[in-house]
Amino acid sequence: MDVNRRFLLRRRPVDDPVPEDFELVREPVPSPSAGEFIVRNIYCSMDPAMRGWMDDAPSYMPPIALDDPVRASTVGVVHASDNPDYPVGQWVMGLNAIEDYSLVTPGHFTAPVDISAVDSPTRFLTAMGAVSLTAYFGMTEVAKPQAGETLCVSGAAGAVGSVVGQIGKIHGCRVIGIAGGAEKCRRLTQDYGFDVAIDYQGKSLDQMRAAIGAAAPDGLDMVFENVGGLVMEAEILNLANHARVVLCGLISEYNASEHVGLRNLWQVIVHQATLTGFLVTDYAPRFPEGGARIMEWVADGRLRIDEDVQEGIENAYDTFMRLFSGANNGKQILKIG
Amino acid sequence: MDVNRRFLLRRRPVDDPVPEDFELVREPVPSPSAGEFIVRNIYCSMDPAMRGWMDDAPSYMPPIALDDPVRASTVGVVHASDNPDYPVGQWVMGLNAIEDYSLVTPGHFTAPVDISAVDSPTRFLTAMGAVSLTAYFGMTEVAKPQAGETLCVSGAAGAVGSVVGQIGKIHGCRVIGIAGGAEKCRRLTQDYGFDVAIDYQGKSLDQMRAAIGAAAPDGLDMVFENVGGLVMEAEILNLANHARVVLCGLISEYNASEHVGLRNLWQVIVHQATLTGFLVTDYAPRFPEGGARIMEWVADGRLRIDEDVQEGIENAYDTFMRLFSGANNGKQILKIG
Repeated sequence: MDVNRRFLLRRRPVDDPVPEDFELVREPVPSPSAGEFIVRNIYCSMDPAMRGWMDDAPSYMPPIALDDPVRASTVGVVHASDNPDYPVGQWVMGLNAIEDYSLVTPGHFTAPVDISAVDSPTRFLTAMGAVSLTAYFGMTEVAKPQAGETLCVSGAAGAVGSVVGQIGKIHGCRVIGIAGGAEKCRRLTQDYGFDVAIDYQGKSLDQMRAAIGAAAPDGLDMVFENVGGLVMEAEILNLANHARVVLCGLISEYNASEHVGLRNLWQVIVHQATLTGFLVTDYAPRFPEGGARIMEWVADGRLRIDEDVQEGIENAYDTFMRLFSGANNGKQILKIG
Repeated sequence: MDVNRRFLLRRRPVDDPVPEDFELVREPVPSPSAGEFIVRNIYCSMDPAMRGWMDDAPSYMPPIALDDPVRASTVGVVHASDNPDYPVGQWVMGLNAIEDYSLVTPGHFTAPVDISAVDSPTRFLTAMGAVSLTAYFGMTEVAKPQAGETLCVSGAAGAVGSVVGQIGKIHGCRVIGIAGGAEKCRRLTQDYGFDVAIDYQGKSLDQMRAAIGAAAPDGLDMVFENVGGLVMEAEILNLANHARVVLCGLISEYNASEHVGLRNLWQVIVHQATLTGFLVTDYAPRFPEGGARIMEWVADGRLRIDEDVQEGIENAYDTFMRLFSGANNGKQILKIG
């Protein structure tokens, strides 16, 4: 391959991204200067957070610049190198972009990975990736589950949610998952061992409130929030006193210009609850510890992590949009080349 | 006096309370049965929380029943008694109602107070009352101010807010207060020693955001929220990372059927902030400790607590509404009789 296919952000999406917001272009493969190297990206992670990076809004990372490729976590192989720490052939993971080849400059986040330790390189985007670490640190450091407590997780069939719920079960909690559609709900209880699955599709706020209330008559001790909007409002109406709410994601709001937000904030006071905004990057120094614990659980058969791998950089847009339609079954990954 | 004037809730207010929601009636003075006593209420506290008790909605206390007098904290004197612990003539404070005489049954919250220790009985509704304790425990136990940090308090000229800001100054913080109108803002900086006062009146969300940003260029380490709505949204757009937000009250929303809530919840994630719903009742066993500390500060001249005393039970409605128009200058109190 001597062509670098790159999936560029051409304009900032308004509400739902449309194909015209992006363009797949062909450019020359870059060459490394002093200290630099080139990664051939094999797989990339498709994450809801990427939608936020497309907006020109203050966030925890700068926006993706227009005409730059769409930023994504990737796993790949060093293709050319002027950096002795990253020889050609070394597998690496890092925050690169949806493109065949990424130029990595000194100081940019990339880490070598030991591909012999796993059955598939995609594991570095799933079990040992940011998504599982998000579930792990959000649960163990923020929610702090105690045996016998009740946990509700939204986006429960997603990459973070399915791991969150299973970590709840490992800690002896009753786990309620909220997901969209009968098939996802079936997976929650049958594949991931959740106690209750609630399908939010077609339900009003009152109906969601009642469904959660029936599943948790003593209220929710913990909420792990990935969705926001009406789903979160229904959870907030079912809090137990001193509930802990981990604010991890708000995927229902990312494509909306007008945000629902949290209209029943009063219930947070009534229940003396705590809402904590959570970014896994806060725990970066402890990633090896978290990754090791997760891999132990996977090896023991206590934690199941599903991957949904789509193929071909030409399907980047369609694959990204699967996150918002809820079509993905497990962690959404794109095999670039 | 052999008549008990009682300010009854006749119907539940929709949005803003109107005079027709209440009625002042004259009834016989009750007599105590075994273990009971009668308090003649001299002063009552007018608190925003009372608006919530008028709704038939789940909360931390049961709603005020229709045709019952409006619940309120009062300070008064035992008028008749069949309880040896509460002899006639003893001063007491408790959660009673806006009426001349309240029948107190065993188990109901009432406490004897030592009137000789204060210059006015109203102090038991202000400096040593729930309002100051709310500021004290919200700051020391939830916000946990560190010297050099920046605190923003909304409803800053109110009974809770003015004490919150002063406790922030006592802890060496930079304190920004948000209040409505030039006179209140003048009081914040001149009477209470706030560093900056921001008048929210006539300002859009963007203007409020910019005003807070100019006053706190490095962001807000702590927010003490009494108001909600646009004021809170503007604060949330100015959070420093790992900010602590004490959710104490949302007075801008109490009279509204449609709640603004918190539409920019995403910023809570971006800044890894923590929002904690706070009820002072959680700290009831520590009230004596908190009250003593507050009185020390008052005695030292480090803490100023203003009272706004209106007179006459016939003015109960007008006095209550001063809380929402912002007419009160300091803790709103009504002298019942």
